[in-house]
Amino acid sequence: MTLPQFFEPPYPVVRLSPKAEARAIRHGFPWIYAGEMVMDRRTSSLLPGSFAVLEDSERRPMGVVTVNPQSKIVARVLDQDPAAVIDESWIAARLSRALAHREALYDRPFYRLVHAEADGLPGVVIDRMGDLAVVQPNAAWSEAMLGVLVAALTRVTGISQVVKNGSGRARALEGLTEEIVMALGTAPDGPIEVPMNGATYFADVMGGQKTGLFFDQRPNHAFAAKLARGGRILDVFSHVGGFGLAALANGAEFALCVDASDSALSLARAGAENMGVWERFERRKGDAFEELERLAAEGQRFDVVVCDPPAFAPSKNALDAGLRAYERIARLAAPLVKDGGYLGLCSCSHAADLSKFRAASARGIGRAGRRGQIIWTGFAGPDHPTLPHLAESGYLKTLFFRL
Amino acid sequence: MTLPQFFEPPYPVVRLSPKAEARAIRHGFPWIYAGEMVMDRRTSSLLPGSFAVLEDSERRPMGVVTVNPQSKIVARVLDQDPAAVIDESWIAARLSRALAHREALYDRPFYRLVHAEADGLPGVVIDRMGDLAVVQPNAAWSEAMLGVLVAALTRVTGISQVVKNGSGRARALEGLTEEIVMALGTAPDGPIEVPMNGATYFADVMGGQKTGLFFDQRPNHAFAAKLARGGRILDVFSHVGGFGLAALANGAEFALCVDASDSALSLARAGAENMGVWERFERRKGDAFEELERLAAEGQRFDVVVCDPPAFAPSKNALDAGLRAYERIARLAAPLVKDGGYLGLCSCSHAADLSKFRAASARGIGRAGRRGQIIWTGFAGPDHPTLPHLAESGYLKTLFFRL
Repeated sequence: MTLPQFFEPPYPVVRLSPKAEARAIRHGFPWIYAGEMVMDRRTSSLLPGSFAVLEDSERRPMGVVTVNPQSKIVARVLDQDPAAVIDESWIAARLSRALAHREALYDRPFYRLVHAEADGLPGVVIDRMGDLAVVQPNAAWSEAMLGVLVAALTRVTGISQVVKNGSGRARALEGLTEEIVMALGTAPDGPIEVPMNGATYFADVMGGQKTGLFFDQRPNHAFAAKLARGGRILDVFSHVGGFGLAALANGAEFALCVDASDSALSLARAGAENMGVWERFERRKGDAFEELERLAAEGQRFDVVVCDPPAFAPSKNALDAGLRAYERIARLAAPLVKDGGYLGLCSCSHAADLSKFRAASARGIGRAGRRGQIIWTGFAGPDHPTLPHLAESGYLKTLFFRL
Repeated sequence: MTLPQFFEPPYPVVRLSPKAEARAIRHGFPWIYAGEMVMDRRTSSLLPGSFAVLEDSERRPMGVVTVNPQSKIVARVLDQDPAAVIDESWIAARLSRALAHREALYDRPFYRLVHAEADGLPGVVIDRMGDLAVVQPNAAWSEAMLGVLVAALTRVTGISQVVKNGSGRARALEGLTEEIVMALGTAPDGPIEVPMNGATYFADVMGGQKTGLFFDQRPNHAFAAKLARGGRILDVFSHVGGFGLAALANGAEFALCVDASDSALSLARAGAENMGVWERFERRKGDAFEELERLAAEGQRFDVVVCDPPAFAPSKNALDAGLRAYERIARLAAPLVKDGGYLGLCSCSHAADLSKFRAASARGIGRAGRRGQIIWTGFAGPDHPTLPHLAESGYLKTLFFRL
């Protein structure tokens, strides 16, 4: 496939300012922040996403980057080889490497295939569900190169349907617009069936949250399912039934899913039907905080309670309020756990690090008059790799307490 | 069973000094440090391990503690109920609660049954291997109460053999002497067979390291075994074959175990024979650093390399040297990993927190001229709970990098 205009070599040259962290970048840090680059008129006028050869302040070439003068992350490293050409073959090589890792991990082709920077494709997220992939081109270069990216993806994986999911906060920061459209093939005529941990989930890839399914909790789902064998599980902020259906697939006696979205709960119900466990499945639509209070008032108790809320602390400014919300969730959920039972608390907030999130959770449990030991600290599954330089901010944390 | 002298109620009273963190203790922090307690003549003369009622500086009772005037941790909270009597029934209740958790987790009775403070039995570690248990009474109270503890253990679990393993640094800090003897039943006439992750391990409970087997790496063994399916794994500091045998049990084509101990390697070999995979098993005795260099010189390459060394940074003083040793391990191990293969690096040093250990590991990989994504951050398994207040210092960290 031919490259779009402005994305063909030879690439223009951009230069680090003397105060930039050139050493960190040489050691693999993938981002150059605004202020670390010499923003002369030519660099400032580059089309968002343009490829360029990055030089250090002493004009030594450091690699090929993609530049977005409008973004706080003004450039992202694509290749440490300054002679690299970012074309279909280059993308295919990155995809092949990413695919080999997932094929080593999973028997069936349902996983996050590309997790952005850590898989060498900055800003690009690809979830694979069998013969369909959902691509989130969250950086300008991947928006411009989408046709080339899809061609490489088809070549490497043989898939026949590609959804472009252009939604979410990351795109807004890059100045990209929202749209969810087919980038290849025809739109699926309903939700996609996704097997995971023995359960069946249904993903609405055209209108759901993010790519329609969250693969990141897979190991934590599996852990919770083990704890819930023979018991009752409450899955709060269940989306399409993540923890609840995994538990039912692995021998739980009963699962109650709570979510604010009717359509997500309908998909969870469809999963339970598909699995033949709908008699052990219940759902409640409502605000999670209110439903937790209502369940307590009803005197309900569970062997396992899991709360997997949206990011309460999506940014540093929201940290204090976010931690208070995590503490409140813990305080409201703890009374629903039987003595000797388990409470799983999750955070997908970058800003709330493990230590802060753990402290907020323990505080909430304490305020409910309960005590807990921590028995499990889990992160996103291995199809969500991180670069060591960005690992500190690993977004997903899942703690299991025994009360 | 009758209580030993000095351990019968009514208990003497000890008092917190005004500067003590009474609030933290009320919220579950289990330790009182020297300097936080009023050390009058009566308290100073208490027999190590003695039970006492703890009062705050305003003479309000806070619970029952065990006191050791010779230790830096001068008291440990046993029960927040000041009226509690620490007898066989009390211990049995703690053991029953600990047992229920392990029985929820594991189909067979091979696990850490008691993990000290987090299981409500300060300083007491108990590993169960079928009908045998190895008890480490690392705090003075449990040394004095060993007979009562063993009676409660037998009552709750029905086991018939109990080894007292009185070795290790923790006991020295408490002023206890070293000995490994039977506390109940006859000594086993050889190593104990332990099934875990589909593999068979042999544990020398009378003369091995710690309790003879490390249960803590179980989930990380399982993860590595998945990565090694169909491939070659190198297990450095293998002890009795932890990662190597788990990999062979789950389809690895070849495992090489390296350790400095002949007897540990013989037990690993015995495991491989028992499993019928000895043709795919090799061992090398030697210094890990030297063996890593030798393997590189031989041009050997593996799909998975795991290094699980002893604590290089056992204390804060040893932190810098420890981190350099972790970095060196990473630098020497990385060249042995195939392109696209996996490197597992473990630390059981309290002093090296996750962030420092990760940075040292990434530095070592970088110095070897390799790059890695982090795909897995694992801790000790769920039979090794931690108190939220002590979680920061969680000792075991296992990182898997894809290179």
